[in-house]
Amino acid sequence: MKIIALDSSGLVASSAIIEDQTLIAEYNIQYKKTHSQTLLPMLDELRKMVELDLDTIDAIALAKGPGSFTGLRIGSATAKGLGLAMNKPIIEIPTLDGLACNLYGTDKLICPIMDARRNQVYTGIYEFVKRKEKPVSYKLSSLLSQCAVSIEEIAERCNSFGREVIFLGDGVPVFEEKLTELMKVPYGFAPAHMNRQRAAAFGILAADYYKEGKVVNAADHAPEYLRLSQAEREKRGMV
Amino acid sequence: MKIIALDSSGLVASSAIIEDQTLIAEYNIQYKKTHSQTLLPMLDELRKMVELDLDTIDAIALAKGPGSFTGLRIGSATAKGLGLAMNKPIIEIPTLDGLACNLYGTDKLICPIMDARRNQVYTGIYEFVKRKEKPVSYKLSSLLSQCAVSIEEIAERCNSFGREVIFLGDGVPVFEEKLTELMKVPYGFAPAHMNRQRAAAFGILAADYYKEGKVVNAADHAPEYLRLSQAEREKRGMV
Repeated sequence: MKIIALDSSGLVASSAIIEDQTLIAEYNIQYKKTHSQTLLPMLDELRKMVELDLDTIDAIALAKGPGSFTGLRIGSATAKGLGLAMNKPIIEIPTLDGLACNLYGTDKLICPIMDARRNQVYTGIYEFVKRKEKPVSYKLSSLLSQCAVSIEEIAERCNSFGREVIFLGDGVPVFEEKLTELMKVPYGFAPAHMNRQRAAAFGILAADYYKEGKVVNAADHAPEYLRLSQAEREKRGMV
Repeated sequence: MKIIALDSSGLVASSAIIEDQTLIAEYNIQYKKTHSQTLLPMLDELRKMVELDLDTIDAIALAKGPGSFTGLRIGSATAKGLGLAMNKPIIEIPTLDGLACNLYGTDKLICPIMDARRNQVYTGIYEFVKRKEKPVSYKLSSLLSQCAVSIEEIAERCNSFGREVIFLGDGVPVFEEKLTELMKVPYGFAPAHMNRQRAAAFGILAADYYKEGKVVNAADHAPEYLRLSQAEREKRGMV
């Protein structure tokens, strides 16, 4: 099966084309341009480079959220537009799951953190669990599903497992100092080639979702913000 | 420090721009076009997308070989041209080391295999070893440095360690069936988002090399083939 994968949930804009065990093409940038300037042109660049016939695509995988509200809406609008035009389903991948998938094959706990502002992070705790079949392969499993909590709370949850943790995500530079104070178990940070969203990693998870029938119609897709937007909070008289 | 990283040693063409802990941009394709059609246009695309001033680059990292002879020459010619024009050093990364670096953070052995034809693979055996400093980080270490051997020999070497092995590289689809016969320890294969060369992974290793002063002048750089080319073998009356 062939999947287009897109992510614009955070600082990175990322597009990938995956066919079974082959990453045909990927394009990732982390730059100050807005995703509306980059995401679709990047996918179009890949499409031209590998002479992709869009009709041959089975589905569009997308980081469904949480993340930057504007970023998520740009990703969703792009995926919905493509899905409706090509009559292809969308596979919605939780952003933190996709991030964790960068570290396939590790025996450590994986804790992706994204800066959610207002003293919170979008985060989760994951591990890779060995499947029963041979040859050996690993399935991503969540010990704490994606959520919005304080850095103190996620550090405490990580400490409670008593296992080494690898942190990644755009929350790392923001909370690195704080984590130094808070962490009681051994911990480290993913290096640059695996510390941010990669559409390719979302595409890998999406292939499993597709086999399990976890797809939605483009018309039904909506991003998952996890929290209310600032405008909605203010409308409801919340802080 | 800021590094341009290039790889065209195998089926993939890959360009990346890395600054310290940030992967600013990367572009990877695995497609039937020749690398002379793709590598430089891909880098140029990235350069334009992130408005890169080439003068701000500290060095050019390159997969130095082994690999496809033509692919290596295209990569070397590109890196030498850039290095000479911009007066920047080249950081030569062994191809198999760069491949292994895709699996940062794993506790398994890593065995990248590239199809070297003539019943051989380019391969090596690697692990990630914990550094002494805190927070925790890992350094790539080779148990068997890159070499050209038969698939039987590398399987036997892997078995001899008695540890689980993750295979990756373009040799996997070619030798998967053979490995099923030969492997006696648990083994598996890296998934699509980490099973081929990524310039970004070479860039990560290159940052360490740079700090250790392991750079060469663009004029002095030459690819490392590990074996004689077919033309040279024939000239010397070898098979």
